[in-house]
Amino acid sequence: MSVTAAPGFVAAGCHAGIKRRKHDMALLATDDGKPVACAAVFTRNKFVAPPVTLDRARLAASGGKAAAIVVNSGNANAGTGAAGMADAEAMSAATAAALGIYKAHVLVSSTGIIGNPLPMDLILPAIPKLAKKLSVEGGAEAAKGILTTDHLAKEAAVKGSTFTLGGMAKGCGMIAPNMATMLAYLTTDADVPQGELQRILKAAVDRTFNTLNVDGATSTNDTVILLANGRAGKPDMREFADAVHRVCEALTLQMAKDAEGMTRMVMLRVTGAASDAEARAAAKNIAENNLVKCSWYGSDPYWGRLLGAAGSAGVEFDTEASAVAYGGITVSRGGIEIDHDRAAVTAHMKNERIEIEVNVGAGGNGSAQVIGIDLGPGYIKENSVTS
Amino acid sequence: MSVTAAPGFVAAGCHAGIKRRKHDMALLATDDGKPVACAAVFTRNKFVAPPVTLDRARLAASGGKAAAIVVNSGNANAGTGAAGMADAEAMSAATAAALGIYKAHVLVSSTGIIGNPLPMDLILPAIPKLAKKLSVEGGAEAAKGILTTDHLAKEAAVKGSTFTLGGMAKGCGMIAPNMATMLAYLTTDADVPQGELQRILKAAVDRTFNTLNVDGATSTNDTVILLANGRAGKPDMREFADAVHRVCEALTLQMAKDAEGMTRMVMLRVTGAASDAEARAAAKNIAENNLVKCSWYGSDPYWGRLLGAAGSAGVEFDTEASAVAYGGITVSRGGIEIDHDRAAVTAHMKNERIEIEVNVGAGGNGSAQVIGIDLGPGYIKENSVTS
Repeated sequence: MSVTAAPGFVAAGCHAGIKRRKHDMALLATDDGKPVACAAVFTRNKFVAPPVTLDRARLAASGGKAAAIVVNSGNANAGTGAAGMADAEAMSAATAAALGIYKAHVLVSSTGIIGNPLPMDLILPAIPKLAKKLSVEGGAEAAKGILTTDHLAKEAAVKGSTFTLGGMAKGCGMIAPNMATMLAYLTTDADVPQGELQRILKAAVDRTFNTLNVDGATSTNDTVILLANGRAGKPDMREFADAVHRVCEALTLQMAKDAEGMTRMVMLRVTGAASDAEARAAAKNIAENNLVKCSWYGSDPYWGRLLGAAGSAGVEFDTEASAVAYGGITVSRGGIEIDHDRAAVTAHMKNERIEIEVNVGAGGNGSAQVIGIDLGPGYIKENSVTS
Repeated sequence: MSVTAAPGFVAAGCHAGIKRRKHDMALLATDDGKPVACAAVFTRNKFVAPPVTLDRARLAASGGKAAAIVVNSGNANAGTGAAGMADAEAMSAATAAALGIYKAHVLVSSTGIIGNPLPMDLILPAIPKLAKKLSVEGGAEAAKGILTTDHLAKEAAVKGSTFTLGGMAKGCGMIAPNMATMLAYLTTDADVPQGELQRILKAAVDRTFNTLNVDGATSTNDTVILLANGRAGKPDMREFADAVHRVCEALTLQMAKDAEGMTRMVMLRVTGAASDAEARAAAKNIAENNLVKCSWYGSDPYWGRLLGAAGSAGVEFDTEASAVAYGGITVSRGGIEIDHDRAAVTAHMKNERIEIEVNVGAGGNGSAQVIGIDLGPGYIKENSVTS
């Protein structure tokens, strides 16, 4: 059930001192130090952290190969300029030295507070210790080492007919479509050419991590990496793609459940849109609308706010053909409330997981599903002062 | 200082019983019942309330003329379909009958909860009473009658060299560029052709009300109306346009100060953008970012979040040339923190009114200013359950 579920991968986590008490570093590597096929998806934010810039350059130079990933939490190494780039380089060099591999095959991730220099005096001595601790059993420790405000470690694995795929992730705030302060690492023993690996990972990320919208904020450090060592031979590609999707989906749901201040997650489906893109735009506008999010927190089936958010999303919208359903119970049709079982809707709205469908009435087949999170006092408490 | 400041206009407000205790209706009219030039700007939301649809049709038919505006608060008459349109019609007919004018010259506004039918049994009997109470002194009562979750009435007036301009407004949540649940009514005795009046009002709305961003939500009922009776003759057009701007600006600042749960308002300026439109897009993305808004609530000068929001706004952005200043003190340049007077920044962040400038580093002259509002527990309290 961890990032080391597939044969050939080892991991470790530790407390280096960046955070007061909790684990704050992780190392993931191939067990023989050899580089393997590597696919990756990064943040689209233009204010991008040095480790992301470094990883992009490394993967471009190696043609998509990596042997190790070193991660620190508690400090994002973002807003740190040239010094931050030198620090990311130094992290990779120390990891390469400890493992006896080329630094060209080491990737680096950081997550945490923006704008402070990395405490390299704590990070550099921890790297050889992490390297010594690397083991198949170390996956759980590694999953702890990448967390920030998360309450729980996030791990998932799938056993295919010929291969294994495991993964770990972190993230619970600053999360919006196009990723977030979220990191995820997957490994597999399947043999998949790098181009195909990249295509499969990108498709899975779009349909899983990128549908989670905690607060509409896109981070500077988002990274999803998939390593494939090929030991199990060529998989059935459909089965493999499905496995990647399932692991990403399981990690996404764990992230949603752990979202900052979250009391309810909403499986929000938009239908009847002119296109899937318009459905996605409407879903995003609804999931990011603070009035809507507050109504979710308050278990208030305030369908008018959903239509108000859909109607201002800049997409084709027709009130007369619109509809809103909570938990499969249609409460509004044609822009007005219709008779419905109020008690059943109220009961559904008290669940931790709410189902909502908004038909925007454009008469098309466009649809989209996103995971929205309610907005309650917990979110403000976590984000009003830098911790 | 009220909507009846200009000669020729009368107003009244009352408690009809839609809300439990507070004023919930207002009537504004010309003192002789004659229609005058009327400019108006309405919500761009496609889920639009019947009174807005009615007013648009009335103004199109009359070529921009109106003699009276009847307003109720406590119920938005939105999400009410054909029955809601009939209710808006009936409100205008009752007002026309009470004043002895054509209903074609009566405009209607509603604001409050979405999705419930208007209590016409309370509204219709109140209209003749309002008509009887109409007076120059009634402006203050009318300003109370249009409020919803507002704590304070919002009024402003300007005395020009040849004319007078007065106004009232409501609004404190569901407020974003392109208006919000906000209503504003202005009157003047200046003689301005309707086309010119519309152009001047639109320009003022864009530079004032539309720069206020409480929560990124666009309402179903937004309305700004300006009536001009011409009694004072033709004004100096520059002076008149400036007066409209000043009254709108004063009302906007009163709305910002009264925003739901607001503890701080932020005069957010974006500079260095490729165009004014890109600057507006970046400013909107920053002002609607919940992590940024929480940092304002917590008086936390977390400049990295500002750049993170600017970098994900979909506009040209260059970290190397970017800069962030709080209260005129530059804290970040080139994407990294620079030496600055921390005590002075901390002191500035405790103010009710914060000044922030974000240079997105695109090297252009594009700039924009918006008014952002912090996100604290008060906003959630006001919006988590329908009141």
